[in-house]
Parts: sequence; C-alpha cells; structure tokens
Amino acid sequence: MSVPAPDPTVLPAEAVHAAAARVMARCDALARHSATPGAIERVYLSPEHARVNRVVAGWMREAGLHAWQDEAGNLCGRLDAPDPDAPALVLGSHLDTVRDAGRYDGTLGVLMALEVVRLVRGRRAPLPFALEVAGFWDEEGARFGTALLGSAAFGGRWDEAWWDLRDGDGTALRDAFAAFGLDPGRVGAAARRPDQLVGYLEAHIEQGPELDDAGEPLGVVTSVASARRYELRVRGEARHAGGTPYDRRRDALLGAAEVALAVERVCRARHHVVGTVGRLEAFPGAVNVVPGEAVLTVDLRAEHDDVRDAAWAAIRADVEAVAGRRGLSWHARDVHEAPALVCAGRLRDVLSAGVATTGRVDPPHLFSRAGHDGMSLGGLTDVGMLFLRNPDGISHHPDESVAAADVAAGLQAFTAAVLHLASA
Amino acid sequence: MSVPAPDPTVLPAEAVHAAAARVMARCDALARHSATPGAIERVYLSPEHARVNRVVAGWMREAGLHAWQDEAGNLCGRLDAPDPDAPALVLGSHLDTVRDAGRYDGTLGVLMALEVVRLVRGRRAPLPFALEVAGFWDEEGARFGTALLGSAAFGGRWDEAWWDLRDGDGTALRDAFAAFGLDPGRVGAAARRPDQLVGYLEAHIEQGPELDDAGEPLGVVTSVASARRYELRVRGEARHAGGTPYDRRRDALLGAAEVALAVERVCRARHHVVGTVGRLEAFPGAVNVVPGEAVLTVDLRAEHDDVRDAAWAAIRADVEAVAGRRGLSWHARDVHEAPALVCAGRLRDVLSAGVATTGRVDPPHLFSRAGHDGMSLGGLTDVGMLFLRNPDGISHHPDESVAAADVAAGLQAFTAAVLHLASA
Repeated sequence: MSVPAPDPTVLPAEAVHAAAARVMARCDALARHSATPGAIERVYLSPEHARVNRVVAGWMREAGLHAWQDEAGNLCGRLDAPDPDAPALVLGSHLDTVRDAGRYDGTLGVLMALEVVRLVRGRRAPLPFALEVAGFWDEEGARFGTALLGSAAFGGRWDEAWWDLRDGDGTALRDAFAAFGLDPGRVGAAARRPDQLVGYLEAHIEQGPELDDAGEPLGVVTSVASARRYELRVRGEARHAGGTPYDRRRDALLGAAEVALAVERVCRARHHVVGTVGRLEAFPGAVNVVPGEAVLTVDLRAEHDDVRDAAWAAIRADVEAVAGRRGLSWHARDVHEAPALVCAGRLRDVLSAGVATTGRVDPPHLFSRAGHDGMSLGGLTDVGMLFLRNPDGISHHPDESVAAADVAAGLQAFTAAVLHLASA
Repeated sequence: MSVPAPDPTVLPAEAVHAAAARVMARCDALARHSATPGAIERVYLSPEHARVNRVVAGWMREAGLHAWQDEAGNLCGRLDAPDPDAPALVLGSHLDTVRDAGRYDGTLGVLMALEVVRLVRGRRAPLPFALEVAGFWDEEGARFGTALLGSAAFGGRWDEAWWDLRDGDGTALRDAFAAFGLDPGRVGAAARRPDQLVGYLEAHIEQGPELDDAGEPLGVVTSVASARRYELRVRGEARHAGGTPYDRRRDALLGAAEVALAVERVCRARHHVVGTVGRLEAFPGAVNVVPGEAVLTVDLRAEHDDVRDAAWAAIRADVEAVAGRRGLSWHARDVHEAPALVCAGRLRDVLSAGVATTGRVDPPHLFSRAGHDGMSLGGLTDVGMLFLRNPDGISHHPDESVAAADVAAGLQAFTAAVLHLASA
C-alpha cells in the first residue's frame, strides 16, 4: 500500500496562520496613518503616502527584500532569483485609500504579497523568476480625480496631460509631485518592460457580496469590469417657481431625476451590468426657481464591453425620450473609459489550483465590478486576481472587513499559485 | 341731448404715455446698477443697494416728494396731504433682484408708484391722505436666504433671530447692516403703525402667463399664495458603485429622484397648487460611490392653506412609500411658512374700478403664486395688488418683459384706483 506524497504546495498551517495574523495586525497599524484623525484617508503624494512607504519598506527589508520607492511614488520590493537577470513575477495592490476608507481595500493585497514572498522563500527550491512586491499609489483617484496614476506609470501608460490635473485645493499634479520630492521629468523611469516580467498577481477583498452570499472564502477573477463614465448635462429653462404653471416648465432637475431612475431600470434589467448616478446637482439651485440646468454623472460597469455599450445605448434612448417630453436638451461627455481587462488563462489556472489546495476544488469564478491596478498593467504583462470574501460586500466604508481565517486561506492559495506557476 | 361729464379719474392720454415711457427708460437705467457686468444682480445691503437708493431718491425729490432711507435700508418718499397728520396710502414694490434677474420684477412697481404720485399731484383737488412711495429691499431673499426682510421691518415683523443669518461669504446680517451704515439696534424704528396708514397698493408683473394667455393687460389680485418650503433629507448607505449589486443598495439619490417626481405628480393632479424642487444634491457626490445621502428642497404654493397642506400630506405619503421600498430614512424640516394673504375687498374694488377706466369693465381676478412684499404688511394695513401682463410669464430671467402700452394702461388704472379710494 503506497502513501501519496504530500502536496509540496501545501504549506505548514502554523506558518500560514502566523502570516495571516501578521497581515491583520499590519492592516490595523497602517490604518493609523491617516490625514483625518479617527478615519482612514491616505491620498497620493501626501505626508501619509511618505510615512506608509517608509513603514512598509521597513517590513520589506525585514523580510529580505530590496526595497525602493519608484519614480511615481510606488513602493517596490524585490527578491532576486538565482539568475539576477530572470524576469519578475509582481505581486501587489495599492496603499492609497478613499476618504473615510476601510482598512483592507488595497492594503490587504500588498501585505499578503509580502507574506507570500516570505512563505515562498521559506521553501527549499529556489524559483525560476524573481518576486516583486508592488505597493501602488493612487488606485482610487481620491486626490486628482483620475485613478490608477501609480500603476499607469508602472505600466508605461503615463499621460502627459495629467500634469495639469488639480486637487481640491487647486494644486497641480506637477507641483504635488515636486513637493513630494519626485521629479516629474523622470516619471518615465517607473515604467517596466514586458520582457522584465512574468506576470502580475493581486489579492483583494471582493468589494461585493457574491462570495459571502455563496459561503465561499475565495474566488478567481475572470475579468476586471469594463467601465465607462459620463457627465450628463440637461438643459431646460430657469423660471419663477411660483409664477410658472406646469405646462410652461422645462424643469431640468425633473428630467435628470427621470434619467437617474432610467439608469437603474436599464441596468437592473440586464445581466452583469451595473449603473450608478453618484452625483446630481441642479442650477441655479435656489429653493424658489425652477431648475434650468442639471448635471449628473453615470458610472457603468459590465463584464463585457458590448453589454456595457448596449446598456448605454438604451439609457441614451430613454434620455432622448425624457428630453423630448419635457422640452429639454442634453449632452453627454465621456469622462472615463476603460475596456474590460480579461485575466490571463494561465494565471486563472494557477490561482484555481492554488485555491484547490485549501480544499475548495472548484472555486467560484467571478468578474470584478470594481476597477483595479491590473487595468493599468494589461498591456504590459499577464494579470491574475484572487478575491477574498468581503462580509456583506461593504467596502469604501469604515465597516469594511475580512476574516483572519479567510486571509490564511488566501495566503495558502496565493502561495500555492506562485509555486504552481514556478513549476509550470 | 346732454353730454355726459368726463370721468375725472381718466387722465390725459399724453401724460400717461409720457409717464409710461419714463418708467420704461428708468427700468433700463436701473438695470445698469448690478454686481455682475452684463447681468442684473442687486442684493440687500450691497453697493448697488446704496447706489440705486440714491438714484431713485433723486427721482422722488424731482417729483416733489420728501425722500429718505429708513432704518432697514428701504427707500421711502412722501407727499403730504394738506393735513400733515393725515395717514398715508403707501404705493410700492421692491428694488432688489434675484441673481441674473429681469429688469421689471419689483423695480417696475416702485417706478410706477412714483409716476402715480406725479399724475395724482397734477390734478386740482388734493387728496385726504398722504401718498408714500416705498422701495423695499430684500423681497427676493437672494443674499441671506430669508426673503422679505425690508418689508418685514416696515411691517413691524422683524425677527431678532435674523441677525445671525449669513450670506454665501459667511457675513452675518448684523455685520452687513453695520457695514452698510445702518444701526442694527434701530431697525425697530422702520416699523409703521396701523393708524399711520390707509393701505398698501402694489403694481407688479404677473410672473406667470395667465394674463398673457387671456389677452388681458391687467388683472386684480385676489390673494398672494400660501407658501411653504421644506428641506428634505434622505438617508441610505454610501457604498462602492462597482461592488454593490442592486439588491444591496440603499441609494439616497434614487430615492430623492422619486420624491422630486412625486412632488410634480401630486401637485399637477390638484387645482391651484404648484410644487417645485429647486435644489437637489447627493453625498458624498463621487462618480463611483452609491450616494448615502441626498438633500432636496420643496417649495409649495397654493391659493389656500388647506389645499397646500393636503398636497404636502400626499407628498409625505409618497416619500414614506419610496423610503420603505428603498430602505431609506428621511426627515423634512420646515424652512419657511407664509399663510395666504387675502387682498382687502375695498382695495380690490378700487383696483377693479381703476382697470375699468382703461376700457376693461370686468378685469380678470387672479391669485399670485409668487410671494410679494404685501405678505409682510398684511398684519399692518390693507393690501391690494395690480398685475401687469408678463409676456410668456417669463420672470427671474433676463428675458423678462412688459409692454410700454401695458405700463400705460397700468398707470391709468393704478392712478384711477387711488382717486377712487380718495373719493370713497
């Protein structure tokens, strides 16, 4: 009777749990670096940015990595392969947050990446590729409105037009860069070359309730949502609220209200598409004036570009009908477009194999409605993502949470995925 | 065959037309006193306020009136009766404007009042009462949010709580008063006593299309609308726009959009009631966050208080249903309430008789959906109002207009009304 050899990608449970405990404690520690006392807020090129990079660089060095801040402010750590010219597998996520954030969005993925490197390093056989840990900045776009600035620099997709972006205080990105101690002229040096890279793997909380609803701790991401954002301007006529009877009104706010409800109706009726009106404002905005103009934003996300665009076409048709009925004119301006990022098959496969080592042989595959740094890297290298269960799907909120046991399962799965990739 | 004696209240047509031409030219002249080049904006206690008071005081003195600025900044002019202790009939309107205003709302009534005094004075028999012209300030409430401040002081209804009202720059009303050269401690001296007054008559553009639709130049006002304003706050939960599926959303903006449409639906279904949502804003107001909170204003006006309150009860029931369906909470705060002001029967009668002298024997009677200074004076003295045709009902807008011929008809009617009152 033969005993099956133990699976070399299954790690000692104690080591994994100790690593998970360290991740949780460090998420708590980083939560204390905030621009707002009692809340979490770490935006790009802020004092918190500098402090958190210093803290995490210390943890990287302690784990045996070479650590540096790149020309866009991203924090990088590297563990070379025996061949110093071997390309790197990058593991990472982001260290910036929205305002009044939770403590796991982004941060969890960076700290898990660091533990994966420790766990891999603790094994006897060296890997055929280097390992890098990336802590990107400005995934959220909370300061300058445009998101993914750090990973865009890393991905070689920096846009010179961004230098003139301004934050809420009117500070230009160019000036914020210099004030942080970075040289705007050298941002191009942050860009990596495809031949330097094996791929990019990221662990992240789901930011949605699908895994929680299914009772699954981990899921493999199929694609990062195709996103499109519009600013819609509706024009009617500002008139006296008392004197103007209904049949003389061209009320832009009521038109905008109908549009917001149409976005919901159109997207709810479709599979794997979600639309949000996050902002709506009426002008002149006086209590006693029929609004002559309204501005609203529409954020559309879908698993596939064609589904997204079909939803937008249906919304446009509804807007046109509302405008016709109410005597309004309207104009939509594209403010953001990101095609869906399809995760690489081989990385989905190794992540699935990694999740299987936790006892879940057929893990859920799901698409990410939220945007992620991988969207900046799709043109540079293969991207794969592992989602961790996010209780009740609460994210971008102080109540955001993840269970330590799920982090342990995630570390086992993520490390096993890296080992599978190394032996593939 | 006997020739009927000429009606002594019918004035020489040339004099009336010259007066109307002067009113039109002066409306143009005052339109040039504005805080905003190329637009009309004259708010309370502004440099424009001081300048316009000086200009109109000059015109008053030129017409033989004694002119002064009262303790609240209102401009007053007086023509005594032979008995210097005789009470006064006050003719007036307001000199302030909304932002980006037309040139006739308020201003027209003050300048017509001045011409009525000239026309009456040109007749042989003196009147048994003094005539006053009042140019009130802050009928619109464009600076401090609360309207009718000037006429409230005149009417003895100043509220000490108003001193802490702040404008958009954070300046308190108390400080604006002092900076304008007025003494906050003396505002009570602007208040008139009932025994000093015969009544208050005002001419104003309709700020609605009823007269225009009926082909009538003039109308007699039955009541000034009962008004009520609310600020409605809707609370849900701010969540990630990408990650949160529809069945987990408690979207405050969509709730507010339904409420805005409910206000329209409820009021359209009722007679003589009109509701407006002039302001709607969602928070946090980020393109990629499901709004957790929304604030909107509701302005309700009706000919009678009970109709208005029934409409509000129906709106509340709709809000409750929307909130229940969407998992939202809500709260409505009363920000303004003014009961309907019923115009005095004897003043309606003399105004009707006045309009009859223009050839319109049975002039339209209509209620004013817009608020007017008379609302502040209802507790002080009888109030009567004459409306002038307002093409297409456009007001609070640069395109606001009135025909010179209608102003001439209005001057004839208004002057005849004063003469009828004198002989009653």
